[in-house]
Amino acid sequence: MRAAVFDSGVGGLTVVKSLLENKLFEEIIYFGDTARVPYGVKDKNTIVRYSLEALEFFKNFDVDILIVACNSVSAYALEELRANTTIPVIGVIDSGVKALENKISSKDSNILVIGTNATISSNRYALALNNLAYKNITSIATGLFVPIVEEGIYSGEILNSTMKHYFKNLQTIDAVILGCTHFPLIENEISKYLNDAVTIHSGDAIVDFLKLEYNCINKFEETNIKFFASENPDNLKNVAKIWLKGLL
Amino acid sequence: MRAAVFDSGVGGLTVVKSLLENKLFEEIIYFGDTARVPYGVKDKNTIVRYSLEALEFFKNFDVDILIVACNSVSAYALEELRANTTIPVIGVIDSGVKALENKISSKDSNILVIGTNATISSNRYALALNNLAYKNITSIATGLFVPIVEEGIYSGEILNSTMKHYFKNLQTIDAVILGCTHFPLIENEISKYLNDAVTIHSGDAIVDFLKLEYNCINKFEETNIKFFASENPDNLKNVAKIWLKGLL
Repeated sequence: MRAAVFDSGVGGLTVVKSLLENKLFEEIIYFGDTARVPYGVKDKNTIVRYSLEALEFFKNFDVDILIVACNSVSAYALEELRANTTIPVIGVIDSGVKALENKISSKDSNILVIGTNATISSNRYALALNNLAYKNITSIATGLFVPIVEEGIYSGEILNSTMKHYFKNLQTIDAVILGCTHFPLIENEISKYLNDAVTIHSGDAIVDFLKLEYNCINKFEETNIKFFASENPDNLKNVAKIWLKGLL
Repeated sequence: MRAAVFDSGVGGLTVVKSLLENKLFEEIIYFGDTARVPYGVKDKNTIVRYSLEALEFFKNFDVDILIVACNSVSAYALEELRANTTIPVIGVIDSGVKALENKISSKDSNILVIGTNATISSNRYALALNNLAYKNITSIATGLFVPIVEEGIYSGEILNSTMKHYFKNLQTIDAVILGCTHFPLIENEISKYLNDAVTIHSGDAIVDFLKLEYNCINKFEETNIKFFASENPDNLKNVAKIWLKGLL
């Protein structure tokens, strides 16, 4: 099975990491729209337009499934993508919500959703959780975490003061959905700050979703992976070398 | 006189503020490329391409001068812009360096240049300062200041820890060039942190440059200003209402 993975930039590599660790695909074509990143501050029309352009790019390859790693695209453009291709298109929101359901049984649990402005404004996570009868959901746009992670800062004073800024009025949190591909890189810090709250990681969630819904099983000893970027592909490849160390 | 002002997003409004305060123009056409902001993390080719597209947009209007408020564009795309229009194109780097020269006479002074990755990598400020025989120049890419300001944070713990992160190994600084349109909003905090270093503000610098080089004098009681954005113009107009309070 061959997968296309689409993200607004380098963040989707955290999803690729989970895919590689689980050996689900014989080939992965990754495209990051690095010339126009970040999508999380953009509006719906723009995100849809950029996503359809990415889909056109993927039509150059023979792939069986399109995995949308970007939460902002998953929030706003899945329908339009599906209307323009015959292959399945899966996003990170449905799979993230599914993963939360598997880990958190009590509907009274305090669930925190964090993401970019675009993802949080879409309210998609909260609506999906409401549909599953979760009652206590808090959504916070934590956009600053993205440039902090891109600056290579994964712990320390800047991250702590930023967590304090965003999380200052929170009650006890049982589980937090990391609704942005950058956040797995600060997963431990976030969980620790929130008194060891359970974390939901898009990459791991999508692996479980693929196994369950698409009958993907780990059978490919080697994954042939190709990286493409709308700008500075060398930088994307360098980040991939660091984030995917030991898997390439 | 009618001016076109180009920026990658809302940041250029700090330059517009100086232009309005000094009543230099009867009309200002502002275009922010909000759909593709920020430019400061992008590479030269992309910045040039986006800048030429903005120039095409301005050709719909009858303007006498193009003011490039964005430091990244000023660093990389001025030549290409000039080759594609007959009106004068002025950027913020030459004017910023000129303003520093007027304020700091000793060539042994310690000068700090801060900006986005693109601006600092271009080395344009440092080269121009070297040409004027300044000997002690430190350049630091302080990209995180941009999203911090865009988050509406102008002081406090996050900003302080970020300044500590970027400025930790600095000796005493005599003057700092604010090489990004967002930085005037944290000008006082930066100056205070650097023991009251002199600050060079692109907007004020460009006003002086226009007066000197283009014989602009303040004679227009009212400026007719129009705001355009490649995405979400309402947001740009709202930011303008706040940042340009009392001037519109």
